[in-house]
Amino acid sequence: MATVLSVSGSPSVSSRTAKLLRHLDTRLAAQGHEVIPLDVRTIPAEALLGADFQHPAVVEAAGLFARADGVVIATPVYKAAYSGVLKALLDLLPQYALAGKTVLPLVTGGSTAHVLALDYALRPVLNSMGAAHIVQGWFTLDKDITTGRDGSVTVAPGSAEALAQVVDQFSAALGRRHLLAATG
Amino acid sequence: MATVLSVSGSPSVSSRTAKLLRHLDTRLAAQGHEVIPLDVRTIPAEALLGADFQHPAVVEAAGLFARADGVVIATPVYKAAYSGVLKALLDLLPQYALAGKTVLPLVTGGSTAHVLALDYALRPVLNSMGAAHIVQGWFTLDKDITTGRDGSVTVAPGSAEALAQVVDQFSAALGRRHLLAATG
Amino acid sequence: MATVLSVSGSPSVSSRTAKLLRHLDTRLAAQGHEVIPLDVRTIPAEALLGADFQHPAVVEAAGLFARADGVVIATPVYKAAYSGVLKALLDLLPQYALAGKTVLPLVTGGSTAHVLALDYALRPVLNSMGAAHIVQGWFTLDKDITTGRDGSVTVAPGSAEALAQVVDQFSAALGRRHLLAATG
Amino acid sequence: MATVLSVSGSPSVSSRTAKLLRHLDTRLAAQGHEVIPLDVRTIPAEALLGADFQHPAVVEAAGLFARADGVVIATPVYKAAYSGVLKALLDLLPQYALAGKTVLPLVTGGSTAHVLALDYALRPVLNSMGAAHIVQGWFTLDKDITTGRDGSVTVAPGSAEALAQVVDQFSAALGRRHLLAATG
Repeated sequence: MATVLSVSGSPSVSSRTAKLLRHLDTRLAAQGHEVIPLDVRTIPAEALLGADFQHPAVVEAAGLFARADGVVIATPVYKAAYSGVLKALLDLLPQYALAGKTVLPLVTGGSTAHVLALDYALRPVLNSMGAAHIVQGWFTLDKDITTGRDGSVTVAPGSAEALAQVVDQFSAALGRRHLLAATG
Repeated sequence: MATVLSVSGSPSVSSRTAKLLRHLDTRLAAQGHEVIPLDVRTIPAEALLGADFQHPAVVEAAGLFARADGVVIATPVYKAAYSGVLKALLDLLPQYALAGKTVLPLVTGGSTAHVLALDYALRPVLNSMGAAHIVQGWFTLDKDITTGRDGSVTVAPGSAEALAQVVDQFSAALGRRHLLAATG
Repeated sequence: MATVLSVSGSPSVSSRTAKLLRHLDTRLAAQGHEVIPLDVRTIPAEALLGADFQHPAVVEAAGLFARADGVVIATPVYKAAYSGVLKALLDLLPQYALAGKTVLPLVTGGSTAHVLALDYALRPVLNSMGAAHIVQGWFTLDKDITTGRDGSVTVAPGSAEALAQVVDQFSAALGRRHLLAATG
Repeated sequence: MATVLSVSGSPSVSSRTAKLLRHLDTRLAAQGHEVIPLDVRTIPAEALLGADFQHPAVVEAAGLFARADGVVIATPVYKAAYSGVLKALLDLLPQYALAGKTVLPLVTGGSTAHVLALDYALRPVLNSMGAAHIVQGWFTLDKDITTGRDGSVTVAPGSAEALAQVVDQFSAALGRRHLLAATG
């Protein structure tokens, strides 16, 4: 139905944030969305930090945002906020790169003491980029994410349920936009 | 009197933020402080983004923070917050890298509409790092910073006065710590 | 089409915030919505400050929120955030009083330096109350609001256009919910 | 040594926030400070909500802030932020009512998920009021505060230690100002 860009903002190779996100991607794909994964850490470092808007990797990332109907933004909490590498990518996008788009913010962290970083740090940045609808997001504790040797991901029941709910609300919000376009 | 680490968080080569900061460094040096300049953009990109705490460049930056009594943090406002590259550096420092330190936050931006990014975005991050005293900072409009061909920097009168005041308050706060250590 | 609760959070009798809001109410009414005005300053002070959830005036206000499909929240900026009286009302509502609702946040202030109070102060509170969709809001400068002796309100062209746009987006978001309920 | 205004921002008669604060007041008094308690809920409601800066109760409260060297601000977390009644009081003070003052922010709440309300909601407001030094504060869980029938207050060991530390740092910061005034 919709094209969803699924962005992991973790700098870590073995990131739980990224694994959780790819796990949730399958739910979105099963609901009929085209899901495009983007891991910030795979973008060349000199492109991200060089403030070079013309770098091919930056142009490509901007293009992915431009064609998406919905964007999932996932980040670990570091120092009471989103990761620097995620912000470095967002800094290279046009000011209103999220205009007209539906956005699902997801945050992971080691302690519930960081929960409010989602609403006080991440959302204001997404809002400044013109997002049309930032749906309710979710904070997942690191310890609630278990990864198997085969790459499988298991989420503790309470968080799994909440994540399924916010993903479905995001999917429904994307659907409403589609429906309206069809009937409007 | 004190050792001051002066950090520019701009990714741009021709950054007004960095030029303004280096201009202010001379005032701090004239007041007897040892000022150590650090431009985030000169740290190798792969060190900043690689989440590698053992990278020599990261270890060196962490060492500079560790030996400083005071830290000036200057950043442009992008997307309603500090720059991603500045945050990428802070993410690589120990959680309480600012414990016991006096901090002066400085922000530059293209519009007064971004003024509150200093208090709502930058300060909470600095607080989470255990800063002992974050003095009043200042937001300087880009257009109030003029740079000459010879590298000289001129600041519009209103901002120049305010900047002198916050720099002097920072210097005084550093002095009080020193005085107390001497008499205590 | 929808029931909209239109809340002014100004404590002032001659509030520009309230006058602007009532002016915008007519646009919402013209689009077919039932608009219910609520001025926080008309709620008895002892009800707002008494932490008494059973006070008839508090119960009545909570009922207005409960039956609304959409809520407009308008507040002046004081001390870099929403007004205390608005927050005093919100404090008396159930934790998820905005669950399932579409919300339009509007802020007024004397200086553009307060613009970010909307995204960094007001939105996080509305999010914590479970709002389903907080649409893009708008910050209006006090000096852009002119009130006539006859109670008429004139808004400076740039702001008037922006306000019309966010009101229409809010109205459209309300309509999508309605449409979906009808077809779903 | 110093005059400390100790402000409880809880609207509740049986507030744990207020009881905890009065308990900490004794530590400050034992260190030689003159401590003046102020409970926002004892200020007449119509004074707080009437936007009447000339009301005797408002003038009196403003006078207490004016003559204090240090201010302790304690609030429960409601809806992800400080209480509305506390903000209603702050709204009635001059814009720079905290200029030159040392401030200790304290927050209480039912869940650690609210911890960041201190740095992201309360501190920006105190900063906007010109505070010279907002020392590190502390978030205390409601369940860590036990009150006896005789009005005694017991705090769980971990929190008690942390509270003693931030109170002592606040006291030391007040002392440094005093010392400097004497030697300067």
